[in-house]
Amino acid sequence: MKIKRDMGKAAALRPLRDVENWDRTVDVVVVGLGAAGCCAAIEASEAGLEVLALERMSGGGGTSALSTGQLYIGGGTPIQKAFGFEDSPEEMYKYLMASCGPGEDEAKIRMYCEHSVGHYHWLVEHGVPFKESYYGDGSYTPTDDCLSYSGSEQSYPYREIAVPAPRGHTVQQDGIEAGAQLMRSLVAAVEQTATVVQEDSLVQTLISDEDGRIVGCVVKHDGEEQLIEARKGVVLCAGGFINNKEMVRHYAPELWRCRYRAASDGDDGRGIRMGMGAGGAAVRMETGCIVLPYTVPKSLMNGIMVDKRGMRFINEDLYQTTVGEAALLHQEGHVFLICDNECFARPFAPTEIAAVEETVADLEKALEMPEGVLQSTVEVYNRHAERGEDPIFHKGAQYLQPLINPPFAALDYRVENSLYTVFTMGGLHTLPTGQVVNPDGDPIPGLYAAGRTTSGLAAQGYSSGLSLADGTFFGRMAGRDLAGKPVPPD
Amino acid sequence: MKIKRDMGKAAALRPLRDVENWDRTVDVVVVGLGAAGCCAAIEASEAGLEVLALERMSGGGGTSALSTGQLYIGGGTPIQKAFGFEDSPEEMYKYLMASCGPGEDEAKIRMYCEHSVGHYHWLVEHGVPFKESYYGDGSYTPTDDCLSYSGSEQSYPYREIAVPAPRGHTVQQDGIEAGAQLMRSLVAAVEQTATVVQEDSLVQTLISDEDGRIVGCVVKHDGEEQLIEARKGVVLCAGGFINNKEMVRHYAPELWRCRYRAASDGDDGRGIRMGMGAGGAAVRMETGCIVLPYTVPKSLMNGIMVDKRGMRFINEDLYQTTVGEAALLHQEGHVFLICDNECFARPFAPTEIAAVEETVADLEKALEMPEGVLQSTVEVYNRHAERGEDPIFHKGAQYLQPLINPPFAALDYRVENSLYTVFTMGGLHTLPTGQVVNPDGDPIPGLYAAGRTTSGLAAQGYSSGLSLADGTFFGRMAGRDLAGKPVPPD
Repeated sequence: MKIKRDMGKAAALRPLRDVENWDRTVDVVVVGLGAAGCCAAIEASEAGLEVLALERMSGGGGTSALSTGQLYIGGGTPIQKAFGFEDSPEEMYKYLMASCGPGEDEAKIRMYCEHSVGHYHWLVEHGVPFKESYYGDGSYTPTDDCLSYSGSEQSYPYREIAVPAPRGHTVQQDGIEAGAQLMRSLVAAVEQTATVVQEDSLVQTLISDEDGRIVGCVVKHDGEEQLIEARKGVVLCAGGFINNKEMVRHYAPELWRCRYRAASDGDDGRGIRMGMGAGGAAVRMETGCIVLPYTVPKSLMNGIMVDKRGMRFINEDLYQTTVGEAALLHQEGHVFLICDNECFARPFAPTEIAAVEETVADLEKALEMPEGVLQSTVEVYNRHAERGEDPIFHKGAQYLQPLINPPFAALDYRVENSLYTVFTMGGLHTLPTGQVVNPDGDPIPGLYAAGRTTSGLAAQGYSSGLSLADGTFFGRMAGRDLAGKPVPPD
Repeated sequence: MKIKRDMGKAAALRPLRDVENWDRTVDVVVVGLGAAGCCAAIEASEAGLEVLALERMSGGGGTSALSTGQLYIGGGTPIQKAFGFEDSPEEMYKYLMASCGPGEDEAKIRMYCEHSVGHYHWLVEHGVPFKESYYGDGSYTPTDDCLSYSGSEQSYPYREIAVPAPRGHTVQQDGIEAGAQLMRSLVAAVEQTATVVQEDSLVQTLISDEDGRIVGCVVKHDGEEQLIEARKGVVLCAGGFINNKEMVRHYAPELWRCRYRAASDGDDGRGIRMGMGAGGAAVRMETGCIVLPYTVPKSLMNGIMVDKRGMRFINEDLYQTTVGEAALLHQEGHVFLICDNECFARPFAPTEIAAVEETVADLEKALEMPEGVLQSTVEVYNRHAERGEDPIFHKGAQYLQPLINPPFAALDYRVENSLYTVFTMGGLHTLPTGQVVNPDGDPIPGLYAAGRTTSGLAAQGYSSGLSLADGTFFGRMAGRDLAGKPVPPD
């Protein structure tokens, strides 16, 4: 059965004067119990505030529970140290500033880098398990291992800008279950606090007083409307908007072409719409994390990624999100990975083979490329690769091998035929305190947000684990700021 | 003397209860007296509404007066017909739908194409002069001529999608004065109506009642604050935001790299911020019109545009805005135009020559390109050009000529060294009626907008004249809708 999704209305504020009686009064309402919401609730609750967490589903977890459970943490964590990786807040800062822009959030990046190790310990103290182990490369660990490279740290130009270190920390649990394990841990930590969790509770809209201060929200629970007063404020942690077709059409139309949306049903932009309705600025709404999963097994990176004309456009050892962005946004989502018999391997992610031919000239023809372009691309690439060089895109030497052994194959990474994975990165503009600001940059009293309801650390050049990292960390900061505790932590 | 620009605050609404007395009550307040504001005022006033137009400067005109005075009008205007150009609303619609997306506003494009000829007549009836003459190609007519191709209608792929027709209609006035002439005409037309114009009046913020309806605005005039009631509504026609560095940084950071901002001082995003503060959605805020002026004289299009590596990335006969977008947003603003002695000519826009060499190999070296790439680009291009073909990017046959006559020159179109011209295209999301909508798509009562305060017809692939076209047309629609007159006109 096909379900018609009604994205509902969320933006129009309910004026306080229409509230006759509050059904309940608390200090803080947290909207959404994914990773960001849990962390906001824990901090606020531990600081003595009365917290009500509202979750629209019948259980917590949100999109975080569907994730690979990897957090981008660095600057010298115990696990980085145990495996001899030198890292520092400065090098992490340099990498993120270089890779997340233009449009990166410098204030958030700076604070997060300085307090990333502390955040690791906070997570561990709150029951999130990390195994002391090093996996290698990749956003996804099929085992229960922890540390891995989850970005472009080792690739040009970043390897020249900052000392590379692996910063992906995956929660200890086999494979895809790691995200669920993260959320089991965080929800259990919430349950250790006095936070009241109310499930099956869809927040309809925010309530504002005559001065525009957010003083509560309207909730639908068991078919009934509840009016909840929040003395200190409301924290919107309601996810992104990739499942709202209209919003994607207006803000980030290219993203809709991706086949797989890494999102729960709740990612319909309600949180963002509520914040905008309250006058909050939504920024970098066109951005997304776009994963093009072609890098496993690694020998595939010995191939060359070309556009529909047969021209290379990027160093193939960049992280799969950076390549995904370039492929979708700059190359019309029409790209192929060209391999020879030597580097070809069956890709880990289901992938079609567009053509196999005995010569590059025939492959060019089979792919309907203009005569001579792919041939000259391969010829020039090979000439340099023979010398162990790639002066064109600076792919790492370990992936440079002339493509000379027939047959030659083209893996089909056209967006319609391949497994591009996407979620939205744009959202409400928040200060590092979690306060939502209006387009003048001024905080909206009583309104906080975290996670993918906000624009986070990265505007582009996503490294895996950044979303859970900023969701958990700045969720915490929102909880702290509401409680009057220092942000960042001392 | 360097002036420090204070962009001021605009987003926080003034609540109605804080208004003790109105200084003035009218039906409609129009904020900003550029092209959009004039047209809104004229329509509302002619329909019998009492209109107050507030202009922050000491005279009307806004950015429109600084423009080239070209409007994108088609579908079969008298001037198109006089010169034998077949055009229809359908072909115009096909072209705009193909070139303005993804992210194009279908509803606005449809309505504008259907009523474009009628709009031409309305402009003429309101004193805007167009000479019955055909100029040729280009966004800028140094003479007082009218009709010209001002987009990519004749280039691949658009020439295959829609029958090409010139649709740029430039107001009759020599050269750069055409924009000023447009505004002299429109301001004169406003003065023919009962509209009251108040200059030196900076609107500070909007006033809303308890239900979120916009009921007026706060104005600073002669150092005094005035509270203006608008019974029917406020129309924000206050321009774009390219002169607001903070906003550009948050929404469209790449655009700040362009050297020349086609904007008046008023383009500080106040109108957009006011609308967002009222809960209005701002959409496609990352987009801009980015002009890379390299196409005059036309023989330059016989050259090839290459990226920093020496690879082509586009058909060089596309309109200069489409090439500018690709160069800045997809090629890091690091591009060169490669010419041989045959096609080289001194560009109309001031342009540096990056290098001149006797061979392509030496040019490649001089431009610090990786060895062999530019050589192979030129070799493959020439091989096809000799046959009068460009199967790679499909440049028009009239611009295909092998580059074989030394010396070879590279014109420097790197963004730091060249005259990239830019203004913002994103803004408030409006219905074709001019009503500003919130992120649920629902109109905000009493709030209208037009011109570059809104997102208009084009999200990308800008054709010259579209901004004045949608500003004037949807400015009119806002005035009509406020007056209860049909939108579109019968």
